[in-house]
Amino acid sequence: MPNYFEPYDTTVTFITQEELDRDHSGLPHGGSATDLPWMTPELAAQFNVIDSFDNHANIPEHFANVDAAASAAGKVGIISCGWDPGYFSLARILADSALPEGDSYTFWGRGVSQGHSDAIRRIEGVKDARQYTVPVEAAVESVRNNEHPEFTARQMHLRECWVVAEEGADKAAIEEAIKTMPNYFEPYDTTVNFITQEELDRDHSGLPHGGSVIRSGLTGLDSEFNNTVEFTLNLDSNPFFTGSILAAAARAAYRMNSEGQSGARTLFDVPPAYLSHHTREELLAHML
Amino acid sequence: MPNYFEPYDTTVTFITQEELDRDHSGLPHGGSATDLPWMTPELAAQFNVIDSFDNHANIPEHFANVDAAASAAGKVGIISCGWDPGYFSLARILADSALPEGDSYTFWGRGVSQGHSDAIRRIEGVKDARQYTVPVEAAVESVRNNEHPEFTARQMHLRECWVVAEEGADKAAIEEAIKTMPNYFEPYDTTVNFITQEELDRDHSGLPHGGSVIRSGLTGLDSEFNNTVEFTLNLDSNPFFTGSILAAAARAAYRMNSEGQSGARTLFDVPPAYLSHHTREELLAHML
Repeated sequence: MPNYFEPYDTTVTFITQEELDRDHSGLPHGGSATDLPWMTPELAAQFNVIDSFDNHANIPEHFANVDAAASAAGKVGIISCGWDPGYFSLARILADSALPEGDSYTFWGRGVSQGHSDAIRRIEGVKDARQYTVPVEAAVESVRNNEHPEFTARQMHLRECWVVAEEGADKAAIEEAIKTMPNYFEPYDTTVNFITQEELDRDHSGLPHGGSVIRSGLTGLDSEFNNTVEFTLNLDSNPFFTGSILAAAARAAYRMNSEGQSGARTLFDVPPAYLSHHTREELLAHML
Repeated sequence: MPNYFEPYDTTVTFITQEELDRDHSGLPHGGSATDLPWMTPELAAQFNVIDSFDNHANIPEHFANVDAAASAAGKVGIISCGWDPGYFSLARILADSALPEGDSYTFWGRGVSQGHSDAIRRIEGVKDARQYTVPVEAAVESVRNNEHPEFTARQMHLRECWVVAEEGADKAAIEEAIKTMPNYFEPYDTTVNFITQEELDRDHSGLPHGGSVIRSGLTGLDSEFNNTVEFTLNLDSNPFFTGSILAAAARAAYRMNSEGQSGARTLFDVPPAYLSHHTREELLAHML
């Protein structure tokens, strides 16, 4: 198979599904709250491993745990390899490195937040729900215009809710419960739309997402030049794109371990060439 | 000085300007056509070096020459560290690594092309000139809409020329000479505007540039999901932003050499953390 396997020494071993699950799963699929904190270190004690840990506040602790396990085992564990954290993190570090004097902003959406959708579903009288996070267009424009705004949460994102109520449920109470939910909805301008299950299934069954990292920064002897660096994703499927980045990170973990590295890593530590399925010659000739 | 020097073992030696220029210039400033091909290898024999070599067709040869000199000297030479090649190359490899099935497009502008401006100035009867490269908005939209178009050069970019003619010069002949110039203007829809030197100096004295790398790619079990990855720069000053990336690359060259690496590299080989002026702890806590 060109690119994927042909350029490498490749061995093929046929095993059972049970053996595959037991011995070769270096891509833990689980949540950041309760699964990955123990799964990734445990796997790193046996395999090169990658994960999409996305609980920003706990990244330093998770990194330390994976580092201890992977270092002891002589394996590489690359954590937080989704798109945020992940590719958005790369956009932030690249923009910040070129423009040390400036401000960075991250806008999410328009896209489905599964955490916020779940939060609505837990309200009494709610049968099903889907929540879209929507960037405030005026805020995006202000950043692009190098106005260096300071935003509240409300000024950056809207929350748009599509809710299926149980039969006979109190819709006004549901709307109130959503709009006043601390952290999730209270800090935002939130709209609530009640629809039928059929409408939800027909119009809101996908998991699109995306967003933009924008840095507005100054250059020049007297900081007289404005510059913006913008990285934008528009994804029909959030989980499939996350999975694609994980696959790229898996290539990198294997290559870094093959050259003798061990321990925890993030995408900040990965030479971009290690993510690619192209040969070095192809990269220099066609992509540089 | 926090971030810049405080986290490192730092030595300070006072020398003369002459000594600085003679012994410590690892940032060659020269053109890719005739200067950098010999300057970078020569400097790499003595110093860690970075350059902004941008003659795409000759990158493999330049890489080999720098690699030979830097490897022999135990130094690191990072080539092609501008924004294209450079940051745009990083955008291409990151997008391609996550979306192996897809098409990548690079749009330049709106911005001043110094090469095209110089080409106009060499025409008889031209006193001064400035040329803007302008992306065709409909082409950008087509890519963003996942239409996977195949473009001719004319369909992607316009060329907009602002020309100061010598007194008594034949303006019609100048316009014809510009529009029919092979490679530079003939393959494009080109507009020519004659203005005074005062107008040129007043309205077109800057060197703004920018552009977008956009990849439109498919994910999903049946390639049913569209995705776009877009990296956009808007720069008031092309040369100052290029210089800023070179400074970031200089941090990386020093760090890579400090850990024992030698030879030629590109930004594809640089862990992004090495470009940053932030400490590892700051990166994990605030940027990931």
